[in-house]
Order: sequence, then C-alpha cells, then structure tokens
Amino acid sequence: MAANDEPIGQAPDLPWPDVTQDSSGRLIEAAVDAFAERGYHATTTRDIATRVGLSPAALYVHFPSKLALLTQISRLGHEAALELVMKSMEGRPDPLSRLQAVIGAFASWHAEHHLVARVVQHELSALADDDRRAVIALRQQIERTVQQLLEDGVAAGEMEVGDPRAVARALLSLSVDVARWYDPRGNETPDGIGTLYADLATRMVRAPHPRRP
Amino acid sequence: MAANDEPIGQAPDLPWPDVTQDSSGRLIEAAVDAFAERGYHATTTRDIATRVGLSPAALYVHFPSKLALLTQISRLGHEAALELVMKSMEGRPDPLSRLQAVIGAFASWHAEHHLVARVVQHELSALADDDRRAVIALRQQIERTVQQLLEDGVAAGEMEVGDPRAVARALLSLSVDVARWYDPRGNETPDGIGTLYADLATRMVRAPHPRRP
Repeated sequence: MAANDEPIGQAPDLPWPDVTQDSSGRLIEAAVDAFAERGYHATTTRDIATRVGLSPAALYVHFPSKLALLTQISRLGHEAALELVMKSMEGRPDPLSRLQAVIGAFASWHAEHHLVARVVQHELSALADDDRRAVIALRQQIERTVQQLLEDGVAAGEMEVGDPRAVARALLSLSVDVARWYDPRGNETPDGIGTLYADLATRMVRAPHPRRP
Repeated sequence: MAANDEPIGQAPDLPWPDVTQDSSGRLIEAAVDAFAERGYHATTTRDIATRVGLSPAALYVHFPSKLALLTQISRLGHEAALELVMKSMEGRPDPLSRLQAVIGAFASWHAEHHLVARVVQHELSALADDDRRAVIALRQQIERTVQQLLEDGVAAGEMEVGDPRAVARALLSLSVDVARWYDPRGNETPDGIGTLYADLATRMVRAPHPRRP
C-alpha cells in the first residue's frame, strides 16, 4: 500500500547486468522510473530524455521510439526472470526443494526489482502484437516449469495438487504481486519475503494436515 | 496474461448497486473502462464523456474533475470490498471457516470486478493525499480483519502461522492479483477461483504436514 508513496526518480536496481553504464542503459533506467510513476501512455520521450540530461533527439540515437524502450525493458525483464527460475533449481534434488527454490527466488526478485516488474506487468497491452506474444511465451515457459514441478511432485508422492496448472499460476501470481505492494522503506527484505513465500508454497502443495475436517 | 487482449469498451460489472442507471453511473462505468485501457493520466474527461455520448461540459455537471471520478471509483470499490469481507464471515462458527469464506469471497470478487480492481490498484498514487489515506485506512481494516482471524485461529489451535501480519498480507495479495490475470473469456469462473483460493488459504495457515523434512 505505502509503496505508492514511494519517491520516484531514483535509479531502480535493474535485474540485468552491464547495460547501465552507457546512455542506453541510463535511458532504460529513466524509462522505468517514468513509466512506473505516470504510466507508459502519459510519458513522453522528452520526459525520459530529460531525466538523464539528454535531448529527445539524443534518445532517438539509442531507441527509435518510446515503444522500443518499453519493449526492451519488457524483454530484458522477462528473460531475466526466466533465467532466474531455471538457475534457482540447479542442484536441488527433488521437486519440492526445486519448487521452494523457484518460488523463494521469484518472490524475492519481485521485491528487489519491483519498479521494473510493475512496468512490465502494467504495460503489457502497449506492446506490439509480436513482442507481446514473445513475452507471453516467456511467461508460459515459467508457468510450465512450475506446473511440471507440481506434476513431478505429485508423481513422486511428495505433493497433493488437484489442478497443477491453476496452482502453478497461483504460486507465481502470489510472487508477482509482491512488486505491487513492496516498499523498500518498510520492514520487509527481499530475502525475508523469499523465505516466507517458499514456506507458503510448501504448505500450498503438500497434502493437507490430517486434522482437516 | 491474455487478459490484456480483452476488448475494452464494454460496461464492467460494477461491485456496487444502483448507480448505473443514470448519467453519473454511466460516467463511472466509462471512466473504469477508459482508465483500465490507457491509465488514468493518459485519459481525458473528453474520452470519458464521449464514451457515453455526453459533452465534457455535461460530465462536469456530475463530477468536477477526472480526479473526482477516480476518487469515487476508488472509494466505492474499497467500501464494497470491505463490506464483502465483513458479510462473508457472518454465521461462520470458527476462525478457519471464517478465513475460508473471506478469501473465497475476496478472490472471487477480484475476478468478477477485475476492471474496477485494476483501476483502483494501479491509480492509488493519483489520489489526493486525504483520499488516498481514507482508502488505505479501508485496506488496513481488511488486513487487520484477516490478521485477527489468523491470530484467533492460532489461539484456538486451529492454525500455525509464524507471522500473522505477513501471512494476512500474502493471502490478500494472492486474491488481489486475480484482477491482473483474470480473463472472462478463459476457462476459470469467479466461483471456481474462490473455491480454489479458499483451499489454498486453508493449506497456507494449517500446521505443515508431519512428513516435512
């Protein structure tokens, strides 16, 4: 809730490496700030360029349009999230521990990179059809990965999940929504949120307690 | 995801009664559509008036500004959500069955009224300070109600919850995010989502399965 009082204008901690040292990277940071503050449609290329001390003409050297900036942010953000999901599972021996690692990392990531995540979520409909389809394909890869973990866990007798597709979506939805309410000035840390959400995910997929009526 | 392809322009099913038959109610519906489509900042009062065949001047007879419309949508939406939460608990004998009723109703409501919920979530920062504070107070009432249910359930030995405040927020966050991804053209129904989420909530607050490592 208080996240909406957050001061805007500071550089977000972007979830991809090595692009922030040049003008192109600084423009992406400024675009994330501007889109998070006022929304994509209400932001102009001049707003973005001004934030990094460039002219609109200088922006066009790097990005042909405001949409090109949004597309790049959305693509980089989704690729980073997918890579995080795949890497978080490495070395985990069974479906349940893989699920805990994925949800812990995914929830924590949405706290740490909440501005980028907000922009990417809110402005999906502004993308060109092909770019939106590409981004949706990346999301579906993440969803299918989690769904597969649930199916593997059920097959291994570790989990009890009635509808793996719906529960996979709920698990990811819970984590994605962290970006909406997370406030870096609050008491929660990305790590703490990751730990709590890995535990909640465990509870959501395990067989219900025998005391259940 | 596909929710972003949803055709805009149809009247949303508003979560409050008896205001949609007059111009004022039709303007609110049109504002919800317009804000959901392009965001508050990029929408003009002319956009809204045009959607219901009125002039901007006729809009001002009902609402002094675009902000007054957003404020009314936000206030009515939050009041309806709080009322839903309080009514859903009536007649439920114990904390766990009250929690199931609250989360089931709250999740289902966010599917049914997903356009209103999206607008209210996205545009909280656009409200005037006093109005935002009033809305945040309504949210806090909902959060405290759920937190109290968890504390009661722990006290009654029905639940095991380490941090009732954080888990209450997670339970509500899971339900709120339904509004982001829900697509009325998909296979899910508001009722089906409510049933699933009441079950997930039950699992999240119950003592973990004894098989836990």
